[in-house]
Amino acid sequence: MIVTLLTDYGRDDEFVGVCHGVIRTIAPDVSIVDLTHGIPRHAIRHGALALRNSLPYLPVGVHVAVVDPQVGTERRALAVRCLDGRLLVGPDNGLLALAWEQAGGIDVAIDVTRSPHRLEPVSATFHGRDVFAPVAAHLAAGAEVAEAGEPVDPETLVSLELPAPRRDGDTLVAHALAGDVFGNASLDVTHDTLAGTGLTLGSGVEVETHGERRVATYASTFADVQEGELLVYEDAYRTLAIAVNRGDAWSTLGLWPDAEVRLRPR
Amino acid sequence: MIVTLLTDYGRDDEFVGVCHGVIRTIAPDVSIVDLTHGIPRHAIRHGALALRNSLPYLPVGVHVAVVDPQVGTERRALAVRCLDGRLLVGPDNGLLALAWEQAGGIDVAIDVTRSPHRLEPVSATFHGRDVFAPVAAHLAAGAEVAEAGEPVDPETLVSLELPAPRRDGDTLVAHALAGDVFGNASLDVTHDTLAGTGLTLGSGVEVETHGERRVATYASTFADVQEGELLVYEDAYRTLAIAVNRGDAWSTLGLWPDAEVRLRPR
Amino acid sequence: MIVTLLTDYGRDDEFVGVCHGVIRTIAPDVSIVDLTHGIPRHAIRHGALALRNSLPYLPVGVHVAVVDPQVGTERRALAVRCLDGRLLVGPDNGLLALAWEQAGGIDVAIDVTRSPHRLEPVSATFHGRDVFAPVAAHLAAGAEVAEAGEPVDPETLVSLELPAPRRDGDTLVAHALAGDVFGNASLDVTHDTLAGTGLTLGSGVEVETHGERRVATYASTFADVQEGELLVYEDAYRTLAIAVNRGDAWSTLGLWPDAEVRLRPR
Repeated sequence: MIVTLLTDYGRDDEFVGVCHGVIRTIAPDVSIVDLTHGIPRHAIRHGALALRNSLPYLPVGVHVAVVDPQVGTERRALAVRCLDGRLLVGPDNGLLALAWEQAGGIDVAIDVTRSPHRLEPVSATFHGRDVFAPVAAHLAAGAEVAEAGEPVDPETLVSLELPAPRRDGDTLVAHALAGDVFGNASLDVTHDTLAGTGLTLGSGVEVETHGERRVATYASTFADVQEGELLVYEDAYRTLAIAVNRGDAWSTLGLWPDAEVRLRPR
Repeated sequence: MIVTLLTDYGRDDEFVGVCHGVIRTIAPDVSIVDLTHGIPRHAIRHGALALRNSLPYLPVGVHVAVVDPQVGTERRALAVRCLDGRLLVGPDNGLLALAWEQAGGIDVAIDVTRSPHRLEPVSATFHGRDVFAPVAAHLAAGAEVAEAGEPVDPETLVSLELPAPRRDGDTLVAHALAGDVFGNASLDVTHDTLAGTGLTLGSGVEVETHGERRVATYASTFADVQEGELLVYEDAYRTLAIAVNRGDAWSTLGLWPDAEVRLRPR
Repeated sequence: MIVTLLTDYGRDDEFVGVCHGVIRTIAPDVSIVDLTHGIPRHAIRHGALALRNSLPYLPVGVHVAVVDPQVGTERRALAVRCLDGRLLVGPDNGLLALAWEQAGGIDVAIDVTRSPHRLEPVSATFHGRDVFAPVAAHLAAGAEVAEAGEPVDPETLVSLELPAPRRDGDTLVAHALAGDVFGNASLDVTHDTLAGTGLTLGSGVEVETHGERRVATYASTFADVQEGELLVYEDAYRTLAIAVNRGDAWSTLGLWPDAEVRLRPR
């Protein structure tokens, strides 16, 4: 079974390499996919969205995620088996919550804080190495999830709140969810929510952020507008997004997570 | 067969990891080498040079490259079999053109825009995931390149123009091709072009860029000059290059792609 | 046998990918772990510490390290077999010295500068590709270390000096070793040295750097102090370290490698 890793560790230090080493020591033949280690530090929701969005493109496997500002405190460490067979491993802080929804819901949830698989002594600051990587490696090598720790009631797990878009007359009041490295900004508007908003491909959209109004084109792809121009488009995850062709919409619009973005057909 | 990946996606987002996931879903046992994902955004020529320079050091495989400012438009998506057996996959924008020259020329070229291997629905903005990764994975797993799409006439493919050095009296008029992350600047001067330029190891070279003249040493390696000093040298691809020992020549000289660099023995 | 790689090449260029290509050409089935390629450029000691700290978490394998400001000069290239069976490959500049101590000491040391495994022509500037990667690949594929080059007397290898902490009355005079990407600063104080310093979990510590005094808490983990507050803690390698919860201690304290850090119980 494959192991995928998503963290906010960055790759400039040896932390990710050490996690690979721990996994390979336990399960030498497992495949490891680095989903990303560039989640902004401590950005739990950003990590949760990236994991959820990626999941449909990953083989069923053990999916480890570590964005863990409360490492070393009482927060629980989890291994979750989903109804579609995927296994999720990470801290109980909401990071995994969108993924288990995407994966059909929770079948079994296990608290792995004192897992028999953990490396001792467990450090207070690097549970990626001492708890999550070894638990994931044993699961990938075939260990039963039920034997990775103590069962917990799925109802008690930390969930994750996302903003929700709403209609205000002819205006769609959306919110910025996250920006990618290019500054493309995803909004809390899915493909299905778009129906009836009056947005039509090729026509103009007024984009209002903190009182400033700009004109964008509702387009399919970046090159549909001139360099430097704003576009609103359905991104590769079928979520509404805003970009500047060859530019950075996140900065241009002065966005932050949850920032209100008001969209109006023109 | 191995798959290699070169993109301008960066690694801070999950894009590269998702491409790995797509490849592993189709071809679980294939080896994947991340050549680099740090090509400057949209820098087609930079990517083309990095791919060509790397190729002699890579096993024969499926070599995917994605630097694709025109993603989602009418530009074609390609799979190319070269005469040395390598397979190249990427957009038809010149990105692959130096590689197929390096690999002995084109044997077969296929338009994979509507490949039976593509993931549907194909997004307008992420063909790395929806077209290039799945096509590459099927090829690596043994699918025939001819069955990956529609044949195209190799003569119609987009090529890539590079600047060419010239002699002007005792001056070699060269051009900056690209800078690496350390600021070492490669020029359009190959090992063979060096003959007769009067440049000799250990002696001085006058380097003129936009009117400013500096003195460099023609050296073998960085440590042959003092810290902070300029050197001209044959780089690891046997191409003439300029560096500052422990410094950044690209910035120091104020270079840009195609910038003229005039070299004169002293 | 696994191959691990640690360099200061960064991942923005194709250098690391080319080394992977060289290894896979020689040893197609070997597993490669990228420990990190983000060692600050030319920071030999930083690389040596990262390698030593990682080693206990890596399977026994061929451990390549390249931080090599003297590449192309007379400095030797090494392959070292340690008493615990690990093989180290890299330049003879101190980079490997902490690792072979960690691995039980040197069994055999070989100068691989003119190794039969090297790629010819050997460039003057990219021995990662031309010397270290092919030597490592052949060793991982089962070649004898003795046949990788000429034996050298282990006594003649370049060693690495680290600062040492000392007591000055009730003050522990420590030194900054390195900062990680989050700005957490490791000191030259190991778990065993802590005994008798009067530092106790949960109590205050005065931290003095270049004359400025600050108050920190001696804590287990980041979240034990408020956001923005300073903590002193035993890090995941059981070394004393200083951090700012959700901040950057390295910058806040104005540290540099070897900077004196005076710690006093309060």
